[in-house]
Amino acid sequence: MEMGKKYTVAVVGATGAVGTKMLELLQEVNLPIEHVKALASKRSAGKTLAFKDQVLTIEELTADSFEGVDIALFSAGGGISEIFAPEAVKRGAVVIDNTSHFRMVPGIPLVVPEVNPESLKTHQGIIANPNCSTIQMMVALEPLRQAFGLDKIIVSTYQAVSGAGAKAIAELENQVQEYLDGKPLTELTATILPSGGDKKHYPIAFNALPQIDVFGEEGYTLEEWKMINETKKIMGDESIKVAATCVRVPIVNGHSESIYIELKEETTVQAIQEILAKAPGVELVDDPSRQRYPQAIDSIDQKGTFVGRIRRDLDNPKGFHLWVVSDNLLKGAALNSIQIAEKMHELALI
Amino acid sequence: MEMGKKYTVAVVGATGAVGTKMLELLQEVNLPIEHVKALASKRSAGKTLAFKDQVLTIEELTADSFEGVDIALFSAGGGISEIFAPEAVKRGAVVIDNTSHFRMVPGIPLVVPEVNPESLKTHQGIIANPNCSTIQMMVALEPLRQAFGLDKIIVSTYQAVSGAGAKAIAELENQVQEYLDGKPLTELTATILPSGGDKKHYPIAFNALPQIDVFGEEGYTLEEWKMINETKKIMGDESIKVAATCVRVPIVNGHSESIYIELKEETTVQAIQEILAKAPGVELVDDPSRQRYPQAIDSIDQKGTFVGRIRRDLDNPKGFHLWVVSDNLLKGAALNSIQIAEKMHELALI
Repeated sequence: MEMGKKYTVAVVGATGAVGTKMLELLQEVNLPIEHVKALASKRSAGKTLAFKDQVLTIEELTADSFEGVDIALFSAGGGISEIFAPEAVKRGAVVIDNTSHFRMVPGIPLVVPEVNPESLKTHQGIIANPNCSTIQMMVALEPLRQAFGLDKIIVSTYQAVSGAGAKAIAELENQVQEYLDGKPLTELTATILPSGGDKKHYPIAFNALPQIDVFGEEGYTLEEWKMINETKKIMGDESIKVAATCVRVPIVNGHSESIYIELKEETTVQAIQEILAKAPGVELVDDPSRQRYPQAIDSIDQKGTFVGRIRRDLDNPKGFHLWVVSDNLLKGAALNSIQIAEKMHELALI
Repeated sequence: MEMGKKYTVAVVGATGAVGTKMLELLQEVNLPIEHVKALASKRSAGKTLAFKDQVLTIEELTADSFEGVDIALFSAGGGISEIFAPEAVKRGAVVIDNTSHFRMVPGIPLVVPEVNPESLKTHQGIIANPNCSTIQMMVALEPLRQAFGLDKIIVSTYQAVSGAGAKAIAELENQVQEYLDGKPLTELTATILPSGGDKKHYPIAFNALPQIDVFGEEGYTLEEWKMINETKKIMGDESIKVAATCVRVPIVNGHSESIYIELKEETTVQAIQEILAKAPGVELVDDPSRQRYPQAIDSIDQKGTFVGRIRRDLDNPKGFHLWVVSDNLLKGAALNSIQIAEKMHELALI
């Protein structure tokens, strides 16, 4: 970037759950920003948003929206990214894409800034932001991989409905109201979850749905495949063994994960705690004697990845268990995208 | 039992979440029953309950309550069992105890009828009913242990609040109402969960609490220790490796479990499905192509243990993943106790 230049930043999907958080974060970001464009569908065009002391008018997303844009943050679904990300790049913008569309494309960096910032250096215009449930796991495990080597991960998730968008939050709240009004649990109104793109819909209120996204190969859902494949790409090691069971639970915001790891070396709980206590992006919350452990409701609007319940496996001296929680709309989505932009600015890659 | 004799059955804790289910099940049980006594604290004494075409008057629990009782079903807390179970045995009753008090006492059978009914034969008056989250895991895994041998279990639970009693259900419902009324999630009224016996209480609504019961050795909670130790005792094999992370979620009823197992032999998903399809107490619900998998809300008032999402581990040919769901008040508590009584009757042990 030229000395003294200030960026024009576009947010694609500005009215969504993640886009809203992106616009909030852009008000306090560590980047020189000249101008912010809020882009959305035709339906939202013309509405206004407060941004610092300005009023932003939402513009309809078109290819020409990206004229003069330096950084384009996408979070409006894979189909939108597929069409418009190349248009933005063509017009000179760097795209940071929060959808899954480009994540596994060879040559496209998939980045958690605490983990693999160096992969930004080879970017060709598009940088992919990983899946929410993957990001927080990477922040917690990379310091342990660095210290002890990482052989195997088995993760079971407890994922919030906000990961499926603002409409899924409304669906949960409506179902909870229906239950309090006396409607049977199996008859609550469900039109979105477990996956808007799948055929059947089930209530999430007072339930646990072991399906996030649609089913893929081997009986694993695409969400589970994302955690498996993205982990290997971000950590840059195809030999890491990863298994995931992804489950939606009736939580508004904040993903929790029960993670079992097998390291390559033996170590102690204390050594792991000491490493995580000073790891970037990690907040260690681990004191059973005072009932201190990460909780979804405590993670909301927080930027950290909270780690606790660290225990040794009783049978494997290289095995450990952790409980990892983060705000899936922030570090899991909007914040990580913004941090990618900050890191690229710092590395003079924009 | 003498030919033609009919049993007198006492339910201790008759007004609790589990006791209520026990009384419901006794109306349809496969046992000759002459008389049912509903026992509870002084506070509930004198209240009446419908039982078939009779009216039961709740009696205050005393040692003499067990005069003439053949079968005493206890579910009123470990302290009550500690004092009154020996009194019941002294008066000739067989005690089936749903609390954790006697479970790990050597010589006291800890029984899931589908798994280890033969251990009933050496009973000396008291039979322990296992922990809710352990029972459903045993029903699902014992057929696989029989077929392939079982080396290791790693389980993460999604446990319903009903496991903490009727008051915990009311607490969840009240918190949900407070949230709909606009109260912040971290300020919802919490006086019971995560554990009535511990110091701090946290909201469960829209949250996941990685603490069930109080903390014990090695940073594991007592609920986690129960799953570890009870599994070895029920399966009669101290060499089985077990790790558990027990988590309370905002579900009224129905425990779910994400289970990873390592068998002693290689096998296939199809072979596991075929075994579980005909296993006693198991209902196989496993068809991703039609979005069929076990759900907590579908398990309520059902007697089965539902198993689905069966997948091979992608890295270990002896490793498999399963999702196991059951009504924790039924198979996890009241139903298993009743089934123990039925099995003892069948084996002429009462």
